[in-house]
Amino acid sequence: MDETIGTGLPLILLMNDDGVDAAGIKALQSVAQHFGHVVMVAPARSQSGKSHAITFSSPLRYRKMKEGPDVEVYKVYGTPVDAYKIADCEVLKGRKPDLLLSGINHGANTSSSLIYSGTMATVIEGCINGIPSIGFSLVDNGTSPDFEAAKMYIYSIIYKVLREPMPADVCLNVNIPPIPRTEIAGVRVTRQALNRWHETLEKRQDPQGRDYFWLSGSLGDEDKGEDTDVWAVEHNYISVQPVQVDMTAYRHMDFFEKWSF
Amino acid sequence: MDETIGTGLPLILLMNDDGVDAAGIKALQSVAQHFGHVVMVAPARSQSGKSHAITFSSPLRYRKMKEGPDVEVYKVYGTPVDAYKIADCEVLKGRKPDLLLSGINHGANTSSSLIYSGTMATVIEGCINGIPSIGFSLVDNGTSPDFEAAKMYIYSIIYKVLREPMPADVCLNVNIPPIPRTEIAGVRVTRQALNRWHETLEKRQDPQGRDYFWLSGSLGDEDKGEDTDVWAVEHNYISVQPVQVDMTAYRHMDFFEKWSF
Repeated sequence: MDETIGTGLPLILLMNDDGVDAAGIKALQSVAQHFGHVVMVAPARSQSGKSHAITFSSPLRYRKMKEGPDVEVYKVYGTPVDAYKIADCEVLKGRKPDLLLSGINHGANTSSSLIYSGTMATVIEGCINGIPSIGFSLVDNGTSPDFEAAKMYIYSIIYKVLREPMPADVCLNVNIPPIPRTEIAGVRVTRQALNRWHETLEKRQDPQGRDYFWLSGSLGDEDKGEDTDVWAVEHNYISVQPVQVDMTAYRHMDFFEKWSF
Repeated sequence: MDETIGTGLPLILLMNDDGVDAAGIKALQSVAQHFGHVVMVAPARSQSGKSHAITFSSPLRYRKMKEGPDVEVYKVYGTPVDAYKIADCEVLKGRKPDLLLSGINHGANTSSSLIYSGTMATVIEGCINGIPSIGFSLVDNGTSPDFEAAKMYIYSIIYKVLREPMPADVCLNVNIPPIPRTEIAGVRVTRQALNRWHETLEKRQDPQGRDYFWLSGSLGDEDKGEDTDVWAVEHNYISVQPVQVDMTAYRHMDFFEKWSF
């Protein structure tokens, strides 16, 4: 598993939202290094649920952590998308990566979770900027997820994308069930399940007697479609969702065209 | 302009990302109050560029500011989407608004800006949860924008949406040019221009001699389509972009279906 594609060594930008020390990004690094030179630019601390948030009202900082023949590591004190901006403008100085990989996310990025995900936000940034971009998530919210089974499939997906370029206006949201390799039923191309997030706010009181709230919740199961990402993962498939940046609801344009003022 | 629709007074949830004291939300409130009972739930401070970020690693707080016959105002110490969650779970206690209005945003939410926008994030939250939802933006980044001309068109759009319900799976991103009412050329139903954001990082040194960076940038003009939101606003039209939550790139599913492992 040490082959590189073509003559030049691909430049791979490695990102996540769980932070530079997360086990998931180290697992992804170990796969990515088989394919090229890896530049890891990731948040200093967990930035889960930060979506496309960017920081422009306060200063940004970053720090180089490590440089070796195969990998460079940079830590950004900001959001995942801040990290993308730092990578583009400062670390790579406009040099375009051959591939952007993000993850392996600790937990699912299926259905509505896609819009809250910092991992997928970096992937969408890459896509907007013309970089083949893939986000990987392991559907395991435990404290010590096992990324080993996922690595084999991630290797295959990266290999395919480097061999046969994806269309330019699409990126991938890959969700992997947390099961041994032998139990994975295969890969399915899926659509985003249209489930809503059912949030809960747990009310507590601080020592001064003032109320505060913890936000949590769970994803609903309104969309039972067998073509969805949620269905695939629940049935032991790896879900590959092609994602686009354009959120225009073309099928409803006629409805609003009829308006007159 | 004081008519209410039907027999019951519509419940209108009013949100934004510029904060509860912004001139834009007050302008929108003055229009919304013609149509029903307004509950404003907005961030305590500006949360521009916070996208769909949610806060679950630290506690959330909110405060009731004002209650009157026509309007209630709540201030949330968190992101725009945190404010949506507080509105849903705590303020309205699950009571579903008849309409969610967000804005008037200070500045454009056209093209790629849509994905960074906290204003549009609250609108998308509303849409996921089955509420007719509209975001309004005035394309003026100055310090004292004039919302007067916008208000007349916002009135007309709200009127239409309350009279003839929108499809359930679509919300609206409305961008208004910063010109007098008589110069507005009309309303156009648009698609999201596929322009990329060209970011710059300005490097400075703090008094300790350490580097820090200010993130800024400008939207490119790669997509010249006359059917786009950017074209419409530049040509004095109000842009009405129907937005959907599903980001699946259906047209590229065949490409990935061919993969085998």
